[in-house]
Amino acid sequence: MPRCSNLVVAQSGGPTPVINSSLRGIIDGARDFGQIGTVYGARHGIEGVLKEELIDLSAQSAEEVALLRYTPVAGSIGTCRYKLKSGQKQDFERVIEVFRAHRVGYFLYIGGNDSMDTAHRVAEVAHARGLDLVAIGVPKTIDNDVGDSAFKLIDHTPGYGSVAKYWTHEVQYANEENKGSCPADPVLVLQAMGRKIGYIPAAARLADPERRMPLQIYLAERPCPLAQLADQVNDELRRSGRCLVVVSEGLDVGDVGQVKDVFGHTSFGSSQTTVAQIVVNYLNQVGLAAKGAARGNVSGTFQRGSMAYASSVDLDEAYKVGQKAVELAAGGESGYMATILRMPGPIYSVRYDKVPLVEVANSERTFPAGWIAPGGMDVTDDFVRYARPLIGEDMLSLPMRDGRQRLAQLAAIYADKKLPEYVPEADRKRG
Amino acid sequence: MPRCSNLVVAQSGGPTPVINSSLRGIIDGARDFGQIGTVYGARHGIEGVLKEELIDLSAQSAEEVALLRYTPVAGSIGTCRYKLKSGQKQDFERVIEVFRAHRVGYFLYIGGNDSMDTAHRVAEVAHARGLDLVAIGVPKTIDNDVGDSAFKLIDHTPGYGSVAKYWTHEVQYANEENKGSCPADPVLVLQAMGRKIGYIPAAARLADPERRMPLQIYLAERPCPLAQLADQVNDELRRSGRCLVVVSEGLDVGDVGQVKDVFGHTSFGSSQTTVAQIVVNYLNQVGLAAKGAARGNVSGTFQRGSMAYASSVDLDEAYKVGQKAVELAAGGESGYMATILRMPGPIYSVRYDKVPLVEVANSERTFPAGWIAPGGMDVTDDFVRYARPLIGEDMLSLPMRDGRQRLAQLAAIYADKKLPEYVPEADRKRG
Repeated sequence: MPRCSNLVVAQSGGPTPVINSSLRGIIDGARDFGQIGTVYGARHGIEGVLKEELIDLSAQSAEEVALLRYTPVAGSIGTCRYKLKSGQKQDFERVIEVFRAHRVGYFLYIGGNDSMDTAHRVAEVAHARGLDLVAIGVPKTIDNDVGDSAFKLIDHTPGYGSVAKYWTHEVQYANEENKGSCPADPVLVLQAMGRKIGYIPAAARLADPERRMPLQIYLAERPCPLAQLADQVNDELRRSGRCLVVVSEGLDVGDVGQVKDVFGHTSFGSSQTTVAQIVVNYLNQVGLAAKGAARGNVSGTFQRGSMAYASSVDLDEAYKVGQKAVELAAGGESGYMATILRMPGPIYSVRYDKVPLVEVANSERTFPAGWIAPGGMDVTDDFVRYARPLIGEDMLSLPMRDGRQRLAQLAAIYADKKLPEYVPEADRKRG
Repeated sequence: MPRCSNLVVAQSGGPTPVINSSLRGIIDGARDFGQIGTVYGARHGIEGVLKEELIDLSAQSAEEVALLRYTPVAGSIGTCRYKLKSGQKQDFERVIEVFRAHRVGYFLYIGGNDSMDTAHRVAEVAHARGLDLVAIGVPKTIDNDVGDSAFKLIDHTPGYGSVAKYWTHEVQYANEENKGSCPADPVLVLQAMGRKIGYIPAAARLADPERRMPLQIYLAERPCPLAQLADQVNDELRRSGRCLVVVSEGLDVGDVGQVKDVFGHTSFGSSQTTVAQIVVNYLNQVGLAAKGAARGNVSGTFQRGSMAYASSVDLDEAYKVGQKAVELAAGGESGYMATILRMPGPIYSVRYDKVPLVEVANSERTFPAGWIAPGGMDVTDDFVRYARPLIGEDMLSLPMRDGRQRLAQLAAIYADKKLPEYVPEADRKRG
């Protein structure tokens, strides 16, 4: 790589409460390495690279960079769902052209499995074109589905711990709500994110590891016919007069009117109806074994944006995995993802390491079948032992000003454009 | 009234983040008055009175009573939606009978307009039967619809400030989400509670009093045809590439499959579909003036249960209005509601006073038409000046234990039953 070259960081996919902590870890970390020049943030992920929209992150005030810790989701430099498909040769060439024009020797991609694949392919094309580019992946997803099911490539992804903590509180409060209002609303259905992967709905159990609440958890991995679900809810109503039902947004309950994104993933937030709604309507139609009606909550993006419930453990880890990625980049270790591995022993601690991008890109993490309790409406204590340390112990102290949270406000300082305008291939096709 | 008689407090209707603060104010306040004996909490509101389920609140530990401050919604003693209709003569007689059996001389009813009416009628029947009962109302509702539109009976109801603060944060985070994800999700629709009353959706403006966000607020009070709403959203998409849309759950967008509660109110949390869903589907069907899809969030009961976003001002006021109610009770001032009135002048401060229950019961508060901005998709600065002080300045510090919030856990200490079993009239009818 050139003696001193610049770094581009880009984000991809759905945001998390801690994605900006990884970004901050990268900005702070880069200051320690003389071989890294300016840190640029691609505006809206790879789309910003293609459009040559590069925010100068090295020129931002120290205060705003520090505030990234408490600024959730991806509003600061933006994310995208633009997929660099292997056929989009012009896009790949454009990325190389932009990197060359801005003397970029380091490319850090914050994202999930798809992004690790993209980072890997960008590096391949760069090397084929003679550009000395170090490509490093930075893991991120609330779904916790990056890596392998044996937890050897990565123990958990930054973002998951905070959403798990959100669900701990949501279920604690929902239980108070349901306990207080059950004469009128005996059933409260809560829909959790996570697509078809059960880590987020499973986190509801962290609110009640002693199993004192009338709580049922339905993961997409263990389909349950609506009639059986209703029977189980009514059994609980006969026992305790009320029931909390947590459902995965990807639970198979018939047609929800799916809308797919460009990755082919279902965008559950845009579906014509929701699993919670279908479950609530079904319960009210077949009738409850108690007076009153079922009602539902679909928190949507708030569960990944609600900063007061973010986990301090998750925030710290996201920051450090960003620093680790910079360290790998500075060491010229192209083709790796920075990772978090759990140390053995009873005291929770982690170490930061690297795994090859290709291994991550070709792996698929599912929710371990052994962590679903017999009966299919709960998770096991093994899951609780896995997830409990990730939510940390205490609440954050959010910076406030004039009654609102003081969020980071990056200045719109962009690298001068050096190339002709470019319309990303996939956008052209739709025009 | 008898020289020393007992007090029953009951809750009615939807819970709030601060309802337990009023309860705590009553428990603490009662200790100052020798004429008040034991404080009982009716389990699930008036249903608990009818069923003679009276929790001994005077016997609870000081620590658990203190924790009521940070314990949202109504799980501690419960609430209900059981309506004491004037025709239910047996129910009224039973209330008097239970009060007589437990030497109850004070009845404090925490609720909205309906509850003030009920409290008033219970007092009337008691007096007609020769029972010396002091009935006092304690205002509560997140909707802020208790009292009059001139704000002379009450400035605002406890509960509203906390939900307004929740919306301040929700919109701040939603704006970051939308700013970050707009290439894929350019429109984010957020549905707010408040039935047909606009105070809660209006609070979205507190997140952005300078009007820098691409934020549109649609109140039920100013109906907007879906086609016009879509045009306005698309105009914003052409301007800034993204749009945040806050809609009232009671906005008229056609049939949502209403489910009504016993008060005849629509239970929007049980509707077959939601306003947000209808708006999202409509926008995606007519097409957006930007790539990507609209998505929606319906936070549901979490907005009234999410303790981290509760307002310290609201919590303090809820506590004091509970204390005020006890003071009125101890003074024998039956037939009043304790109230909060704003003092004139630029510095926000309130005083605690009383207003006759009948005046509150017969009043109706609407959202002032003058606070809806011309164009019908925003609220005015006058509204912001009214609501801003209610959300306070800082975040709470929630008590945590083992990664979870330490919520109040009242002991199940009940008054001994002295009367035969009784099935409430409305429950009999359904049997």
